[in-house]
Amino acid sequence: MARRRQLYEGKAKIIFEGPEPGTVVQYFKDDATAFNNQKKGTITGKGVLNNRISEYLMTRLGQIGVPTHFIRRLNMREQLVRQAEIIPLEVIVRNLAAGSFAQRFKMEEGTPLPRSIIEFCYKNDDLGDPMVAEEHITAFGWASPPEIDDIVQQTIRINDFLTGLFLGIGIRLVDFKIEFGRVWDNDVMRIILADEISPDSCRLWDADTNEKMDKDRFRRDMGEVEEAYQEVARRLGVMPENPSDFKGPKLVH
Amino acid sequence: MARRRQLYEGKAKIIFEGPEPGTVVQYFKDDATAFNNQKKGTITGKGVLNNRISEYLMTRLGQIGVPTHFIRRLNMREQLVRQAEIIPLEVIVRNLAAGSFAQRFKMEEGTPLPRSIIEFCYKNDDLGDPMVAEEHITAFGWASPPEIDDIVQQTIRINDFLTGLFLGIGIRLVDFKIEFGRVWDNDVMRIILADEISPDSCRLWDADTNEKMDKDRFRRDMGEVEEAYQEVARRLGVMPENPSDFKGPKLVH
Repeated sequence: MARRRQLYEGKAKIIFEGPEPGTVVQYFKDDATAFNNQKKGTITGKGVLNNRISEYLMTRLGQIGVPTHFIRRLNMREQLVRQAEIIPLEVIVRNLAAGSFAQRFKMEEGTPLPRSIIEFCYKNDDLGDPMVAEEHITAFGWASPPEIDDIVQQTIRINDFLTGLFLGIGIRLVDFKIEFGRVWDNDVMRIILADEISPDSCRLWDADTNEKMDKDRFRRDMGEVEEAYQEVARRLGVMPENPSDFKGPKLVH
Repeated sequence: MARRRQLYEGKAKIIFEGPEPGTVVQYFKDDATAFNNQKKGTITGKGVLNNRISEYLMTRLGQIGVPTHFIRRLNMREQLVRQAEIIPLEVIVRNLAAGSFAQRFKMEEGTPLPRSIIEFCYKNDDLGDPMVAEEHITAFGWASPPEIDDIVQQTIRINDFLTGLFLGIGIRLVDFKIEFGRVWDNDVMRIILADEISPDSCRLWDADTNEKMDKDRFRRDMGEVEEAYQEVARRLGVMPENPSDFKGPKLVH
């Protein structure tokens, strides 16, 4: 494979130039970070699993009409996606109180919320991804009011679908973070779901035991991190057959 | 005067039962706090001045059709106001970056914003008055969507009017905090401006020198705090004639 030009390296993924214009390749790393990069580590096989899990969830969302950046998986650690102009917002959906939200409002983790709450954070490591309101988003021009409306509508659909999908496999979708980007189709701008959906970006609790099956196991040093990611992949039916593949192809670009 | 029952003691004011149903008396103290009560002190005469300044600004706002809780000033430190069910939100208007906003977005203090930004904080000392979005406000039921719309519309009018008024006396209205409450008129609920508007709740900079004329002088130990409050009162034309009155009547209730 020809050596591809790296466009961007994030905390959990590397983005390479794609094989044709308007595409990029997402390479999923095993690197894990938490608390705005203060904690760093590795979750062996995470990249392979997140590549599969995100492929599966994005594909299913596409089938119900949610536009996503996903095109196809290329190999164990890479997927081809549409190149989008990423909107610098983390869109967070909270169905139960957990994490920073539970702390902020002094609520016990797991407390059901009166209704699902959508939060926005400004994606900026230097500022620590501060929570912002629509006021800040529109005043600073990160997204326009119609774009925010579009994002909120899509986010509600994504939450409804994923909540149902996970419940079907015995998992409570406590909260999750998604990102959106702009693409142009025949000069018409559209907003599509981008980035990834995986146990890195979702809080997933076993519906019976409330056991955590997500990155909180890493954040909070709970152990059995790899096993949790594998169990999510297994329940979704996307666990790779050969666990030794977890090491995946080396980064050859 | 008959001893009145105290309903509530806040950081800078005490609220007593009013002389007739639907009214309360606001007593303005000289106590000053900052950083969520971590810093405490006294600004001599502040209560007297804020009583006058808030009287003046609320009266002027009433004259342009902004409904407020203000009825009349009773004496040096007290004013009669309508009893309102306070909406537990601090409504913050920011015209220039300053204070926590400047820190949050790493902007230099005094940087003009692309447009005025309205922020909401949930009034809760125990939680440190966290910033919230409309999502939290409606999900937790602190205010309804139409109430938020009403608050935003009124807040824009208040900002426009106060910005002009202060500019007319050589003062830049950098930012300010207001609160609203619900009252019932013939079984119709209305939202009115409540609490106070004063150098305690506004950032006011001299338009020529950018000198601070507000509580930041106390927060940041800049000295000449009393003088700054007096200068604001003087420019508004509400400085009491006899400075010895600053001590005001003792709290007799």
